[in-house]
Amino acid sequence: MKKVMLIILDGLGDRPHPYLKHLTPLQAAEIPNMDYMASKGILGMQYPIAPGVPPGSDTGHLSLFGYDLERDYPGRGIFEALGEGIELDEGVAFRANFATVSERGEELIVEDRRAGRISGHDAEALASTISGMSLLDGDVEAEFVHTLEHRGFLILRGRQLSSQVTDVDPHEEGYPVLEPLPMVADERAERTARALKEFLARSYVLLRDHEINRRRMNEDKPPANFVLPRGASEPIEIERFGDRWGFKPAAVAAGPMYKGIARALGFEVYQPEGATGLPDSNFRGKIKEALNLLDYFDFVYVHMKGTDVASHRMDPSLKVKVLERIDLALEDLIDPPEDLLVVITGDHATPCTIGKHSGDPVPVMFYGSGLPRDDSTNFHELDASMGGAGWFSGKDMMKLILNYSNRSLEYGLRPLPKRTWYIPRREDLTPLRI
Amino acid sequence: MKKVMLIILDGLGDRPHPYLKHLTPLQAAEIPNMDYMASKGILGMQYPIAPGVPPGSDTGHLSLFGYDLERDYPGRGIFEALGEGIELDEGVAFRANFATVSERGEELIVEDRRAGRISGHDAEALASTISGMSLLDGDVEAEFVHTLEHRGFLILRGRQLSSQVTDVDPHEEGYPVLEPLPMVADERAERTARALKEFLARSYVLLRDHEINRRRMNEDKPPANFVLPRGASEPIEIERFGDRWGFKPAAVAAGPMYKGIARALGFEVYQPEGATGLPDSNFRGKIKEALNLLDYFDFVYVHMKGTDVASHRMDPSLKVKVLERIDLALEDLIDPPEDLLVVITGDHATPCTIGKHSGDPVPVMFYGSGLPRDDSTNFHELDASMGGAGWFSGKDMMKLILNYSNRSLEYGLRPLPKRTWYIPRREDLTPLRI
Repeated sequence: MKKVMLIILDGLGDRPHPYLKHLTPLQAAEIPNMDYMASKGILGMQYPIAPGVPPGSDTGHLSLFGYDLERDYPGRGIFEALGEGIELDEGVAFRANFATVSERGEELIVEDRRAGRISGHDAEALASTISGMSLLDGDVEAEFVHTLEHRGFLILRGRQLSSQVTDVDPHEEGYPVLEPLPMVADERAERTARALKEFLARSYVLLRDHEINRRRMNEDKPPANFVLPRGASEPIEIERFGDRWGFKPAAVAAGPMYKGIARALGFEVYQPEGATGLPDSNFRGKIKEALNLLDYFDFVYVHMKGTDVASHRMDPSLKVKVLERIDLALEDLIDPPEDLLVVITGDHATPCTIGKHSGDPVPVMFYGSGLPRDDSTNFHELDASMGGAGWFSGKDMMKLILNYSNRSLEYGLRPLPKRTWYIPRREDLTPLRI
Repeated sequence: MKKVMLIILDGLGDRPHPYLKHLTPLQAAEIPNMDYMASKGILGMQYPIAPGVPPGSDTGHLSLFGYDLERDYPGRGIFEALGEGIELDEGVAFRANFATVSERGEELIVEDRRAGRISGHDAEALASTISGMSLLDGDVEAEFVHTLEHRGFLILRGRQLSSQVTDVDPHEEGYPVLEPLPMVADERAERTARALKEFLARSYVLLRDHEINRRRMNEDKPPANFVLPRGASEPIEIERFGDRWGFKPAAVAAGPMYKGIARALGFEVYQPEGATGLPDSNFRGKIKEALNLLDYFDFVYVHMKGTDVASHRMDPSLKVKVLERIDLALEDLIDPPEDLLVVITGDHATPCTIGKHSGDPVPVMFYGSGLPRDDSTNFHELDASMGGAGWFSGKDMMKLILNYSNRSLEYGLRPLPKRTWYIPRREDLTPLRI
């Protein structure tokens, strides 16, 4: 049985770009280590959720980790909060960006969904201005926490709240801010929509007139005069990854949402020095940390966010640079331990040409001793589409990982009263006593 | 409409092997007939159950035959018993190997899951020693039947028994014999576990002290001092293959389990002279028999076990030899009748490098006149992974077979009250009478 390192390069998949002579970033980048691994391992293509369905970063990950999104997806906000170590017992959590809006009649138009990628002290100060608000005559308390760049999350604490409300964020610039609507005819959903509307109206007044935003406007920077909640989310029971797949798992990640997902699934989470969740992150430090963690864990998930950031900025040259820096970091995996399976893929495609997640397939590579082989010589979309691992659905990823790490249990065998897909650990078996 | 010959080469799929210059057995073997068929037919890759899931030989077959394992799988034991012509009305059947165990404290450690591949008179005599035992104060009767080599099956006859008990066989040498546990909180499952434990304890005493085992130990052979039941199984209603897919089916097989599956699904079963279920089987005789049967049947399933036996022995050279002998036998199919579709695949991969079933994909070949074409020139994993039949799930195999034999019914048409996937036989239609 092998140990596993699963490296997720966020938003990895891409399309040909005119600035790259109509190559994809993976094709244009100088990535000799990944190419070497491709020539020795096997490639394939996976649709993280389903063909043509663009995953969110949360849903793409959950599906690749082998969870059923219809049953096991609590909404995004919970993961954002857990990423900052905040657990929610009662209430609803939302992902929420700082944004720039303008008034047009009675509507608010979204001018910039990221308020000029505001960050640092400005974002912190504005967040504390709108946090701690008491809503619905004191029944509900709103907490707003800033995380990375323009990102944050909103928690509504209180009883009788529900995640069944629509997004306020229209997800498109030039569109109006949306009214939160109950998705079911249900008192809790209506209450939640009311509380959220109250929060939006009051926080808009506080943000619009805030001295930081006046200063930003004098400096010709877009003011962060609104927050756009989305991804309402309630706590639910999710089976721990370790129980589901028979691993003792750890995660190396810097982005709050990714740490949050990992914590929600019972991973131990590590963030090495210099790991930022940005294109300048310490990729090498992450791989070194992951290799060290393999002494204590048998599944290490490594998340690299930089590729996706470059894609959202629609900057293919930056994505090429990020891929090349990641490739340097992978040098330490070229000659991996005999008992290690390395898997490299993305949680979704983010084509630089469109600057957002797409439903395109994502290249995947399995690397390690004893695997099948194919004809691939390079790690990119074209070779992957003809690779020996074929085309598969992200929900099958964990079963393929069990298979290629020689951990899968033959269908029909049942050493444990509970159905498992993996060969059980010896200590979980009940010996016959005579 | 064509007739169909479906040839299952057990455990066909494989991985590159260092002894074969890092080729797979299919790549290393001299198989001019299969290669010729590949160049004229179309190849593909199929996951018999699902990506990454290692099938058992029973579950792999059932899935390829188009049955839903969640609903139609009775457990393995029934098929073993049916292979010997024994039908079970009431009770539970288990597959059970002779094994060698040693005592360590209160536990029994499995030293050899096959008791040195014991066979012949020794196995028969030991089987009769432990057969006919009366359990649970006479409520349950145990029957043990030896089949091939170290293999056999155990039947517990009686009322109020259940197949919802875990395997006693730990499936790994060096592991302890496992206690049979009820998989549901249910009086019948608990009773079955109790009856099984009584059988194990009493048969261990009889086998341990048996003169045959004393003699085997004197000859430095591992004693067959235990039987390892697994795959508890109860009779269930399974739709007949002929009704499900519109064929009149026959099977050519020698291994007991495969004959049992075929009988359970309503195939007529034939075992030509010299067909043994082993690497030295009479492959040519099987193909000749299958060709003859096509005069009376329109679907003939041919099972060849030798490839899987070589894989379990982790002997890639033997697998190459078996493939080459099978290839010679296929000479009679090179120039097939105009109305015949030949399909060659495996029920699972058994890589010689790991010596057990894996969840790897399995090559498949469709051969006959009027088929689509692809660029394949050789029958092996690499060409198959780029073949014109693509990648598909084993559960879709029968629908593809209906299609390539020009028997499938257009979706939405309904000439019969019952939904069928095939064009009905004329005699099954109800003419309007005026």
